[in-house]
Amino acid sequence: MTQALDRWSPPMRDPDDDTPRLECGVFGVFDIDDAAAMTALGLHALQHRGQEACGIASFDGQRFHTERHMGHVGDAFGGGGLAERMPGRFAIGHTRYSTAGGSFIRNVQPMFADMEAGGVALAHNGNLTNFLTLREQLVSDGVIFQSTSDSEVILHLIARSRKSRFVDRFTEALSRIEGGYALVALTNKKLIGVRDPLGIRPLVLGDLDGKAVLASETCALDMIGARFVRDIEHGEMVIIDRHGIESLRPFPAKQARPCIFEYVYFARPDSVVNGRSVYDVRKRMGRRLAQEAPADIDVVVPVPDSGVPAALGFAQEAGAPFEMGIIRNHYVGRTFIQPTQGARELGVRMKLAPNRAVLAGKKVMLIDDSIVRGTNSVRVVRMVREAGAAEVHLRSASPPIQWPDYYGIDMPDRDKLLAANHSVEEIAKILNVDSMGYLSVEGLYWAMGVGPRDEANPQFTDHYFTGDYPTRLLDREIAEGRNEAVDRQLSFLVDA
Amino acid sequence: MTQALDRWSPPMRDPDDDTPRLECGVFGVFDIDDAAAMTALGLHALQHRGQEACGIASFDGQRFHTERHMGHVGDAFGGGGLAERMPGRFAIGHTRYSTAGGSFIRNVQPMFADMEAGGVALAHNGNLTNFLTLREQLVSDGVIFQSTSDSEVILHLIARSRKSRFVDRFTEALSRIEGGYALVALTNKKLIGVRDPLGIRPLVLGDLDGKAVLASETCALDMIGARFVRDIEHGEMVIIDRHGIESLRPFPAKQARPCIFEYVYFARPDSVVNGRSVYDVRKRMGRRLAQEAPADIDVVVPVPDSGVPAALGFAQEAGAPFEMGIIRNHYVGRTFIQPTQGARELGVRMKLAPNRAVLAGKKVMLIDDSIVRGTNSVRVVRMVREAGAAEVHLRSASPPIQWPDYYGIDMPDRDKLLAANHSVEEIAKILNVDSMGYLSVEGLYWAMGVGPRDEANPQFTDHYFTGDYPTRLLDREIAEGRNEAVDRQLSFLVDA
Amino acid sequence: MTQALDRWSPPMRDPDDDTPRLECGVFGVFDIDDAAAMTALGLHALQHRGQEACGIASFDGQRFHTERHMGHVGDAFGGGGLAERMPGRFAIGHTRYSTAGGSFIRNVQPMFADMEAGGVALAHNGNLTNFLTLREQLVSDGVIFQSTSDSEVILHLIARSRKSRFVDRFTEALSRIEGGYALVALTNKKLIGVRDPLGIRPLVLGDLDGKAVLASETCALDMIGARFVRDIEHGEMVIIDRHGIESLRPFPAKQARPCIFEYVYFARPDSVVNGRSVYDVRKRMGRRLAQEAPADIDVVVPVPDSGVPAALGFAQEAGAPFEMGIIRNHYVGRTFIQPTQGARELGVRMKLAPNRAVLAGKKVMLIDDSIVRGTNSVRVVRMVREAGAAEVHLRSASPPIQWPDYYGIDMPDRDKLLAANHSVEEIAKILNVDSMGYLSVEGLYWAMGVGPRDEANPQFTDHYFTGDYPTRLLDREIAEGRNEAVDRQLSFLVDA
Amino acid sequence: MTQALDRWSPPMRDPDDDTPRLECGVFGVFDIDDAAAMTALGLHALQHRGQEACGIASFDGQRFHTERHMGHVGDAFGGGGLAERMPGRFAIGHTRYSTAGGSFIRNVQPMFADMEAGGVALAHNGNLTNFLTLREQLVSDGVIFQSTSDSEVILHLIARSRKSRFVDRFTEALSRIEGGYALVALTNKKLIGVRDPLGIRPLVLGDLDGKAVLASETCALDMIGARFVRDIEHGEMVIIDRHGIESLRPFPAKQARPCIFEYVYFARPDSVVNGRSVYDVRKRMGRRLAQEAPADIDVVVPVPDSGVPAALGFAQEAGAPFEMGIIRNHYVGRTFIQPTQGARELGVRMKLAPNRAVLAGKKVMLIDDSIVRGTNSVRVVRMVREAGAAEVHLRSASPPIQWPDYYGIDMPDRDKLLAANHSVEEIAKILNVDSMGYLSVEGLYWAMGVGPRDEANPQFTDHYFTGDYPTRLLDREIAEGRNEAVDRQLSFLVDA
Repeated sequence: MTQALDRWSPPMRDPDDDTPRLECGVFGVFDIDDAAAMTALGLHALQHRGQEACGIASFDGQRFHTERHMGHVGDAFGGGGLAERMPGRFAIGHTRYSTAGGSFIRNVQPMFADMEAGGVALAHNGNLTNFLTLREQLVSDGVIFQSTSDSEVILHLIARSRKSRFVDRFTEALSRIEGGYALVALTNKKLIGVRDPLGIRPLVLGDLDGKAVLASETCALDMIGARFVRDIEHGEMVIIDRHGIESLRPFPAKQARPCIFEYVYFARPDSVVNGRSVYDVRKRMGRRLAQEAPADIDVVVPVPDSGVPAALGFAQEAGAPFEMGIIRNHYVGRTFIQPTQGARELGVRMKLAPNRAVLAGKKVMLIDDSIVRGTNSVRVVRMVREAGAAEVHLRSASPPIQWPDYYGIDMPDRDKLLAANHSVEEIAKILNVDSMGYLSVEGLYWAMGVGPRDEANPQFTDHYFTGDYPTRLLDREIAEGRNEAVDRQLSFLVDA
Repeated sequence: MTQALDRWSPPMRDPDDDTPRLECGVFGVFDIDDAAAMTALGLHALQHRGQEACGIASFDGQRFHTERHMGHVGDAFGGGGLAERMPGRFAIGHTRYSTAGGSFIRNVQPMFADMEAGGVALAHNGNLTNFLTLREQLVSDGVIFQSTSDSEVILHLIARSRKSRFVDRFTEALSRIEGGYALVALTNKKLIGVRDPLGIRPLVLGDLDGKAVLASETCALDMIGARFVRDIEHGEMVIIDRHGIESLRPFPAKQARPCIFEYVYFARPDSVVNGRSVYDVRKRMGRRLAQEAPADIDVVVPVPDSGVPAALGFAQEAGAPFEMGIIRNHYVGRTFIQPTQGARELGVRMKLAPNRAVLAGKKVMLIDDSIVRGTNSVRVVRMVREAGAAEVHLRSASPPIQWPDYYGIDMPDRDKLLAANHSVEEIAKILNVDSMGYLSVEGLYWAMGVGPRDEANPQFTDHYFTGDYPTRLLDREIAEGRNEAVDRQLSFLVDA
Repeated sequence: MTQALDRWSPPMRDPDDDTPRLECGVFGVFDIDDAAAMTALGLHALQHRGQEACGIASFDGQRFHTERHMGHVGDAFGGGGLAERMPGRFAIGHTRYSTAGGSFIRNVQPMFADMEAGGVALAHNGNLTNFLTLREQLVSDGVIFQSTSDSEVILHLIARSRKSRFVDRFTEALSRIEGGYALVALTNKKLIGVRDPLGIRPLVLGDLDGKAVLASETCALDMIGARFVRDIEHGEMVIIDRHGIESLRPFPAKQARPCIFEYVYFARPDSVVNGRSVYDVRKRMGRRLAQEAPADIDVVVPVPDSGVPAALGFAQEAGAPFEMGIIRNHYVGRTFIQPTQGARELGVRMKLAPNRAVLAGKKVMLIDDSIVRGTNSVRVVRMVREAGAAEVHLRSASPPIQWPDYYGIDMPDRDKLLAANHSVEEIAKILNVDSMGYLSVEGLYWAMGVGPRDEANPQFTDHYFTGDYPTRLLDREIAEGRNEAVDRQLSFLVDA
Repeated sequence: MTQALDRWSPPMRDPDDDTPRLECGVFGVFDIDDAAAMTALGLHALQHRGQEACGIASFDGQRFHTERHMGHVGDAFGGGGLAERMPGRFAIGHTRYSTAGGSFIRNVQPMFADMEAGGVALAHNGNLTNFLTLREQLVSDGVIFQSTSDSEVILHLIARSRKSRFVDRFTEALSRIEGGYALVALTNKKLIGVRDPLGIRPLVLGDLDGKAVLASETCALDMIGARFVRDIEHGEMVIIDRHGIESLRPFPAKQARPCIFEYVYFARPDSVVNGRSVYDVRKRMGRRLAQEAPADIDVVVPVPDSGVPAALGFAQEAGAPFEMGIIRNHYVGRTFIQPTQGARELGVRMKLAPNRAVLAGKKVMLIDDSIVRGTNSVRVVRMVREAGAAEVHLRSASPPIQWPDYYGIDMPDRDKLLAANHSVEEIAKILNVDSMGYLSVEGLYWAMGVGPRDEANPQFTDHYFTGDYPTRLLDREIAEGRNEAVDRQLSFLVDA
């Protein structure tokens, strides 16, 4: 019997898959029965935030237990026996899609470190914009890295702090990192949650029969029957222990600026993020889009599943029927090999199928949540035309994506972003649609219900649409100064 | 290294899962490149007809190759290497959920037999109502069974025929079987498709660049880019070889009576079954339901995914807004163990989540496609109430299910069927809804667009609602005469 | 999750591996606790008789349970949980290396069949010499084969018998088969053991606390602490049930003629076969060899492990020191790929290493149990020379192998057998030894302690050395008449 | 699809298994084709030094590749594809049984670290006696440990050195560690081998077509066809790069004192360690034992396999016949569960079987290489008696083991060591033998061919027999001072 420890081939991403990806969801519970099992359930509800890998760390009062897997939460932690393998009333968990770091096993979280003060398990969602700079400094100080994950940088900063109290060490470490992130950490005494100074990445506090729960989204609270208490605030650190919940402000005060893409695509529609229902915001995007970019159509059809709420909003505003003109096949598996004959457009047909009864002979309005490179849109439009649509109109429920992200979203470089390189008219031609339209940035802010964008102090992180990054981008600046790729220092790393 | 050959533990079915199950989808291609890969794609599109196991048999001109797996098509046949493992231009495939026969490996199809005339691979969808009687006769004649599958009975009947031509042997075998079924068979010269005398189970003929394709549903043709030609007719046998397609009528002429449950639940909404769009029929069910059982409501919410078309039809007819008030989590895995604390209603929450923004304070109309035992409905209603709905009304888009099936649908016994044992008023109380309603049988026939039910010669197989079985049920009659369980003779079988 | 059911790639046999292979060991227990676990232990002791696959069938008083695996017994049935998976006080088991039938899963034994009289599990060691003829007849009668195993032919013959008592049906089936075999069968009432009319393959009866045990060799009795009772006699059928042990003679009386190769190579040295200690016989072979083919040497070195007893006998007789001049590496695994550089003679070095301290500068007498193609001998001799031996002499403890086997031993065709195509002088040259010698047939019979070979009625099956086959070879005769390969009818079989 | 990354359950060690265990073998090649494949072959030959896990690190001129597995080398690295997965002309490898550190994945070697100067892969055989002390210091300096392996301590010391040249950093790290060890390290420019100041653990230099090879034993050189050049000397560091081989002496000069247990048990008999054939030494132990502790016997029987050479020496000296009275079953697998009935002495019978033909009625002299707790001896003696031996005498080819090891050998505490707690007479009674005897320490030194033990400066590390430890034992001294278990600081570590 043998078992490969260091190698794992993740399912190939379909090269035509055009969805942006978020890297992570985090979850934590303190002092409840079956902490690991409850964490598994919370992670299952956060599966949409990362399907590549997942992990849980629990503490049983004496020892830490960690288990990390490639693949889905249900496969990894379902099936029984978890309580025996991971006892304890304290646990944190993580579900992951990689942006930085490569899809290798060492990078799966939570990361654990044995420090002088005891063990610490840490998981994060987001990305540090000065990761490479910190890593370079640490390596030159003699630090050895076992992974290419942000979490490990943070652990080293905590370990090397000269402070004596753990919270002070953590705070000192936080003072050195930059970027957008939500962190959960578990020690032998505390569960800690931190949200970056601008609140770019989300984190919420829940209550399960009087015990604290932390989660990336409220849908994870619903999953375990916990009550939503409040969002962790931007720049807030909450420290949960047997005495209760303490709130610290380790950073200089700033105005909040949460990521608006959570509403556009990432968060689940049943989640409430920063006080707003994601479903409601998406419907408002669709409604506004119907006002900004109307067309003479017979039927409104969402690109499933993420386009559904906006399509409902569009249809209600436009007074046109909403129909499921595209059916999604939810069964997936390893990538099929494209046969040499016949199976045209296999990539898209594996997941989406045309519903001829809705499409044939109709003037169809397709609603998608966003368009990144446009590769998927081309194929969906072609599929709808082949199913007999008389006209195909396409609307994006978000503004044109023109700038890459550095806070944890996996997007292509600028030269691959369709809207960064083409006018709307060109895009209509490229995608072969009868008309094309995007929601405006103003429309997006209207949908958020906050009035017009404050150009001096924008209410949201929205650089994808505006190029207005909320923090400096240290690694990128240094790399540009050196005329190197941003991932220069990692070139020497072991690849497995 | 070891590998278990005979044992496999299927994922436990959630005991509260209340959906009826169909056992199979079939697919076949003749004389095309990459026949096995194309068959895998066709099976992927038919995955909804059976998720427990799948198999492919190909013929390369000299040898047959078979590969059968527990699990999903994408996992089993994706990932490359299929063309090398299963060469040839001829293939059939099968995807399966078990009704009869137990969930054991030997029963996975296609089944293969080496006969005097050469090899034969066979796959079927449906159920023989005289399976046990035939099996008992064959065993007493000295036949050895390696499985408990209908397909093996048919193979033995073919093998033991005294006719010389293969088609004649097959026809003779067909003359002895009773029930509802669609068959595909592959020999070293022919691809054969058969539909039972009443056309209970579906089968369609497609065309891919001039070559014949057989499939349970049209969605599998769309998957590989094949053109829909026509339904195989009830009681028709099509024989495809290098000379073309021949059509035989091996049975006495009867009126067609296809299964109406394909429209209610089983078939994919984008399929066209017996000339009718499944999506359209479901919307008409919803529309008629709005007429037959209206209520004063704020919002129409489908139980996803199968309730969506009927809910759209209901909402359009009722003039009420359609909203996704319940969000489905498409990530699944092995069954999670119910933790001892907190995670109430875990069974339903693993798959469905309430969208509070839609439900809170509203009079909600829930639309489900059908209700079998009601266990799932109880939980969905409770979940919607806990999310703050002011009123919850429930409508079933099909008539009350009161009779079990013997033609390939996995349904509980009569004493477990909610509507067989309770009035609508009682059901409303049991499910804790403010009002309850079912579509009438007349409404169902109206939705099918065929005018009223012909009581003397009903247009569809509809015994689930009427108790009017379309064929005799020989095994059941004998078992009742002997006062035995229907599966008496199988009690001695090896269980692995 | 998916699991391949029909395909398994066995470890590649090293093409230079020159050992003959026996196909099977069988084992059975009746009415003891933990019958399946005890069977697993018995099979572990018989692992040397077949390493490719193994299986167990148990009966719990109501149901049969079967489990079959590719790979070793310890991997397949160790590790716990067997008692839960395979309850019951009755079990048979099988360990297998394939001769006929291909190394595919369907051929793994025990085979099970559900007959009119109840279930029957059957396992066999040996080979039917009229297998193809019987199979052809059965197929033309409409029988379907699921495997290419002898066992399935026997099961069909039992099932098709018109007799009413199981034992009579079994006896009738036995009357139609020819060849060398030992069978164990388990029904819901009986454990049955049969040895072919000449007793070619071995089978012994043991006693464990008053309960009967059947096994291919006595070493399996030692393993479970059972007492050896006696050999099952040639042509004997023993029927074990709750009333005791009954002995039948279903065949016409013949003189016994057991396989002499069991002593030369197959049986374990600690087994007692047909009343003779295998270890003692092998030592006597070596002793006689020292008389027949002496040489002026410094040291006697066995080719491990099977050459050890003969080398001890040789050394004791010759008065020369016995030394472990070749060390065997017992760790194995999947075949290593031959690197392009350096690792000369990798095939042999993976398993054997030269012990320079013994070999350098010495006149070495190498003792091997037998030589088939000579490929391994060439390499061993070269390795010993490279380690510095002054002279290398080689002796085979059995006579020259000149004729293939048809009773269950996997040997190459005659044109591949070294001694069938070359004189001893030529062989010395081919193998590059200073002298070469074989034991004579007379010497072999002397070692068996039976006096000279009775040319009219030889005491043992010894055609490997003499060409004197003990039975007719029907399949072979028919194939030669048709000028076909012996495996003609199987060309159409599915290969997976 | 999911794959556990952090957990692996090693095969349970049989609690009655009484063999001492060595933790590791190391191997390295520089500038040869197929470096990883050649390393796999070398590790296969070193498999006896550690069967729990294995790993390889290769460098392809640009990147490092590592692959680590639980289980045997042949399973992990055989089977093809290695050259593609691990390209490069430079590689080191490791095969492991754990002493310190727990049998968890993180501890599998080689360990890799990304340092300022580039990547470093490191593997070691042995144990640091100040590991815990160093680890405690490093943790208090803010170092994070990902494993509990000695190798990681060394890597951190290298990384934290302030020297600029890699060799100087390595030397500085070596100056801080204490114990017995052999190290191989691979950087992007060099292959480095180090043996501890006393040469406790072995390491040899070989030559393959002009290129350097490092290995724990010469048998690994034989495996790949490399020529033995010389032992790495005690306290020597060899640095191999494209300019050739450089030899450094980083430690103060001391007299060599290699581990004598390598000769008693660990090394393979065909290896030459420190200039002595292991086989010859073992035979001399047996010969001397025959002089020191003779008896009136009929036959000399080794406890296989490690007792064979000493038994041969004993038999030759005593003039008694050497016979294989105990047969070893080389097939293993997962631990079988002890059935409730019958299978007495299952633990020993799984591996060893009595050869009654040799034992029955004889006065038997059993020769074992060493006796640790005696649990295995009890069972072997009982098995031999049950096989009918008239008398059973037992001799240990090494002196009484009375003191535990701290240099990489897995031995029980002193209170479990049979000879530390009982006289020879008591032991004879406990083991139920007619006479018992041990080789004397003088005899052992005589067998080594070095004249009498130099009591002031013993020629070998021999504390197992004498209590004379060759170095201070810092961790142990501190632990005793603190009245703690030696593994105190590790109590907090994650256990998976």
